[in-house]
Amino acid sequence: MEKSLTLKLAVLLYDGFELLDVFGPLEVFGQCDNQFEISLIGENEIIQAYQGQRLVTDYKLDDNTEKFDVILVPGGLGSRQQIYSSKLGDWLIKHNQAAQYILSVCTGAVFLAQYGLLSNKRATTNKMAMDWVMEFGENIHWQKKARWVVDGQIWTSSGVSAGIDMSLAFVAELFGFEYAKAVADKIEYVWNADSDCDPFYLHGL
Amino acid sequence: MEKSLTLKLAVLLYDGFELLDVFGPLEVFGQCDNQFEISLIGENEIIQAYQGQRLVTDYKLDDNTEKFDVILVPGGLGSRQQIYSSKLGDWLIKHNQAAQYILSVCTGAVFLAQYGLLSNKRATTNKMAMDWVMEFGENIHWQKKARWVVDGQIWTSSGVSAGIDMSLAFVAELFGFEYAKAVADKIEYVWNADSDCDPFYLHGL
Repeated sequence: MEKSLTLKLAVLLYDGFELLDVFGPLEVFGQCDNQFEISLIGENEIIQAYQGQRLVTDYKLDDNTEKFDVILVPGGLGSRQQIYSSKLGDWLIKHNQAAQYILSVCTGAVFLAQYGLLSNKRATTNKMAMDWVMEFGENIHWQKKARWVVDGQIWTSSGVSAGIDMSLAFVAELFGFEYAKAVADKIEYVWNADSDCDPFYLHGL
Repeated sequence: MEKSLTLKLAVLLYDGFELLDVFGPLEVFGQCDNQFEISLIGENEIIQAYQGQRLVTDYKLDDNTEKFDVILVPGGLGSRQQIYSSKLGDWLIKHNQAAQYILSVCTGAVFLAQYGLLSNKRATTNKMAMDWVMEFGENIHWQKKARWVVDGQIWTSSGVSAGIDMSLAFVAELFGFEYAKAVADKIEYVWNADSDCDPFYLHGL
C-alpha cells in the first residue's frame, strides 16, 4: 500500500437516497483493512432509503464533528426534494474546506453542482437524470459518456452501480491497482477499471 | 410481466452481515415497481453490519409476523458466530414452511445447510469460505463453479456481488428476462445472466 493513514470518510445521507449508491462504495471501502473510518451523517438519527430501509446515523448535520478526509454523496430520487433544502448544502460547503476528496454517485452530483463544488470542472452523473442534474450549477463540463470522472479532488460517477467501479478506482489511486483488484476479487465483483468504458451510454441518452 | 402479485420478502439480518449481500439484492428488488414488499427481520431492533453500519429492523425474530413469500439470507463474517445460535435457525425453519422461495448470498448458505434446507440439493456459496460452509449439513451437492445455483425453491449464490446477478435472474424467473434486463440497465449494472459463468472460480479454490 502506498498510504497507511486511516482516512475519515463521511457519507452524507438524506431521506430517499438510493441503497446501492451508498452500500456499493461502503462494501468496497469496508474491505480495505480498516483504512477507512466510516461515518454516516444525516439531518436526523434515522434516515430512510428510497427503498424504505432505515439507517442509524453516526452524526447529525448540526453536530460539531471532526474533519473528514473523504465525503461521499449518494444519489437517489430523494435528491429531487433535498436539493431545495439548504441544510445538506451548508454541511457540504463547510466540510468541503477540509476534505481531501469529494465523491458522488449517481444524482449525488446535483449537490456538488448546486453548491459550487463543480465549477469549471468535468463531472458526470446518472444517465437518465442527466438533463435534470445539468440544470444546477454553472460552468460545469458534464461528461455524458463516462463510467466515472476525476477532476482534481472531485470524483463523480454515473448511475448507481457505477459507484462500485469508481470506489475501486479510488482505492487503486490511494493504495495501488493490485490492492484494489484484490478487493474486487474478494467480493467477487467484475470490476470495470476503465472510466472511459461506459456500457450504458447508449441506453439513457 | 408474468406475475403481478406483490411478494412479501423478508431479509434475515444478524450482527456481522455483509453489506452488499443485503443491499445488492434489495437494490434490484426495490427497482421492481413495488412487486416486492421488503421487511428486515432480526433478533433486535438494531442490527449492525460487519462494516459497522446500523439498520433498523421492521420485525424481531420473536414477532408473530405474517407469512413471507421470499426469504433472503445474507452472508458475512458474523455468520461464523451466528451459526451456533439457534434463534436464526428456529425462525428459518418456521418460515421455510410457508415461503415459496429461499435465497441465500455468500455464506448465508451455511444457515440453509445447518437447518436442513439443502439436503439432497445442489447449492453454492462464497469461494473463500466454501471449505468452512461444507462442514455443515448433510447430503448437499456443493457446486464449486457457479455464479449461483437454483434447485427447486432454493436459490444460492456465490460471494457478495454474485447476489446481484442471482437477484436479477430471480426477477427474470418471476417477471421475464426483458424486465430483469431493464432493471439492470436502470441501475447501470453489467448483469452476468449466466449462472455457469463464474469468473472467480480460479481465484478462491
